[in-house]
Amino acid sequence: MTCDDPIYLDYNATTPIAAEVVEAMLPYLTTHFGNPSSGHVYGGRARTAVELARSQVAGLIGAPAHDIVFTGSGSEANNLLILGLANKARPSLADDRRHVVFSAVEHPAVAKPCRSLAAQGWRVSVIPVDRLGRVDMERAAALLSGGATLVSVMHSNNEVGSVQPIAELAGLAHRAGALMHTDAAQSIGKIPLDVDRLAIDAMTIVGHKIYAPKGIGALYLRDRGRIAPVMLGGGQEQGMRPGTENVALIVALGAACALAARRIDDDQRHLRAMRDRLMTALQADIPGLLINGDPAAGLPHCLNVSFPGVLGSRVLAGARIVAASTGSACHEGGETPSDILVAMGCDRDRALGAVRLSVGRPTTAAMVDTAAAALIRAWRDVT
Amino acid sequence: MTCDDPIYLDYNATTPIAAEVVEAMLPYLTTHFGNPSSGHVYGGRARTAVELARSQVAGLIGAPAHDIVFTGSGSEANNLLILGLANKARPSLADDRRHVVFSAVEHPAVAKPCRSLAAQGWRVSVIPVDRLGRVDMERAAALLSGGATLVSVMHSNNEVGSVQPIAELAGLAHRAGALMHTDAAQSIGKIPLDVDRLAIDAMTIVGHKIYAPKGIGALYLRDRGRIAPVMLGGGQEQGMRPGTENVALIVALGAACALAARRIDDDQRHLRAMRDRLMTALQADIPGLLINGDPAAGLPHCLNVSFPGVLGSRVLAGARIVAASTGSACHEGGETPSDILVAMGCDRDRALGAVRLSVGRPTTAAMVDTAAAALIRAWRDVT
Repeated sequence: MTCDDPIYLDYNATTPIAAEVVEAMLPYLTTHFGNPSSGHVYGGRARTAVELARSQVAGLIGAPAHDIVFTGSGSEANNLLILGLANKARPSLADDRRHVVFSAVEHPAVAKPCRSLAAQGWRVSVIPVDRLGRVDMERAAALLSGGATLVSVMHSNNEVGSVQPIAELAGLAHRAGALMHTDAAQSIGKIPLDVDRLAIDAMTIVGHKIYAPKGIGALYLRDRGRIAPVMLGGGQEQGMRPGTENVALIVALGAACALAARRIDDDQRHLRAMRDRLMTALQADIPGLLINGDPAAGLPHCLNVSFPGVLGSRVLAGARIVAASTGSACHEGGETPSDILVAMGCDRDRALGAVRLSVGRPTTAAMVDTAAAALIRAWRDVT
Repeated sequence: MTCDDPIYLDYNATTPIAAEVVEAMLPYLTTHFGNPSSGHVYGGRARTAVELARSQVAGLIGAPAHDIVFTGSGSEANNLLILGLANKARPSLADDRRHVVFSAVEHPAVAKPCRSLAAQGWRVSVIPVDRLGRVDMERAAALLSGGATLVSVMHSNNEVGSVQPIAELAGLAHRAGALMHTDAAQSIGKIPLDVDRLAIDAMTIVGHKIYAPKGIGALYLRDRGRIAPVMLGGGQEQGMRPGTENVALIVALGAACALAARRIDDDQRHLRAMRDRLMTALQADIPGLLINGDPAAGLPHCLNVSFPGVLGSRVLAGARIVAASTGSACHEGGETPSDILVAMGCDRDRALGAVRLSVGRPTTAAMVDTAAAALIRAWRDVT
């Protein structure tokens, strides 16, 4: 960010890279350039760095280091788990187990690979969500009564911040004989996560939401014997993901996880304070402002609001000093509302009035006040 | 590298990152952190940078920018092409076209995905190579006489540097109705490549062999309608590769390609001079030294030699001042010779005596002389 740049309130889309993370990775962009597969000292240094990072990532979620597979993105981690499970499934797998279950508010990198299994004869079930974006546990139990191979529900939602009852879902999943996966892209580093307490079998981790660069992710997988790799090649990542390791970005992800582990209490307090300050300011001056999701029970940094009577995109267009996003998609014919808000039962006006505001470590009270004033002014100008 | 580090002669395994490349990518690790999918100015800057890099990569190989898909590695580019072709193949595809053909010296990231198609009923054919590692064109023609969907032959070999007759193979492939793919991981940036002159349909590009970081690659694909994506999710990379773009490393790959395009003539001259100096020094003092491949006709920076009467690994163990590799694999039971040298018809002793030495931009005559002396001494010590 430079001085003239807008106030960034889109930390859910991506975060800047923490100075500590850049510092940790820089030696691996300059001096320590070895290929981890090389037998000499250059290779050894790279290997050591990758394994330290693996233990740092694992440490943040209470997992053993050997259960972490590095990937090129969260999307790849999701695909590896979902398609990898199907790759591994025996032809003899019973029909009632040939079943994947996910929620109505999953990211396309979960929903699309799950849906693609239908072409291989799998049953695909979707758990609906309530008006706050939380999965319907009764429907989940009913859908799972006949058995399944996979239940995949995000830990928290990327648009409205709702946190899902993952441990309870894991209980249902395990009774159905299914593996429990959670895409923790938005939660990791922001709320404490422990794979044993959540009773999950697999978790998706992403670097660029926790102050590491874009282009690095990881899959936690309790038992890697459950999947077969999606891509084939060299034996890297214990045969689960071929290709020379992305050493510098792996180091960065490790450093970001270590930093998040140290800061998580302070971060949570700060994020919640900034988010609540923003919410209070907007509510005070915008009668009829609607809150989507349940901020008090959800992610501490995330605020999804619907401006009454206008398109969210028009408010943002009028508040150029704020960088945030709507969940809707623009195209020639107009705007399509966010799938997630639609799944939550929001009517069209409410969904198209929505703006997703998310704060981060660098967000200050002054930024929040300036941004809130700009959003209020923009809303008044267009109503 | 620091002053006390061994002399690096393993540029085929990976290269250091060029200072110009680090400089180009650094702003995308600090100031310009936006997600290319975001509509605001942060997103716009990232999008612009990704598209500049796409045109830089395309420029190095004479391709249009929109034919470049960024991936997380060369292995991923190979898998995307090979598995993507099979994903796209119609059930109605004739049996004689359900056929993939690759060479006996391909990297596992080509050979394994090709072989995996056998489980889906595809015929898998391997073109043998001669004693210099070049594909047998008569056998290639015979194998392709019945038709095929894919011919995949590396542009040059990663162990011995042999350059393949890709344009001729492309002629055979096209007459057979097949798409021609070449894994150019080792060639790119070292010898001029032009997709039209080579008449190829697809090419794999890797960052970490051309002074960009590990963790970034690209697939050139003339007609992306020929494949269906392997992973599913967001619409990034025109729907061919989901996941938030690895902006900093994409910028780095673009910068490395632009740098290679500017330097390629000087680089070639320098690499060839250093490689030939090394070869001459070793030949002068090691009677019976065998050259694997055909350095004069092959990659300019690559020298694969078999030390007579000893294991290559023992020579390297005795020459700690040199960082290089053998193509063989160590395991508890001893050593297994390089698959590539075996495919070239090397006997076991010759294959186990091999050492791969590769020079790079930073290699100096003094380094070559010191390394050669150390290798000669080590060889004498163990014979």
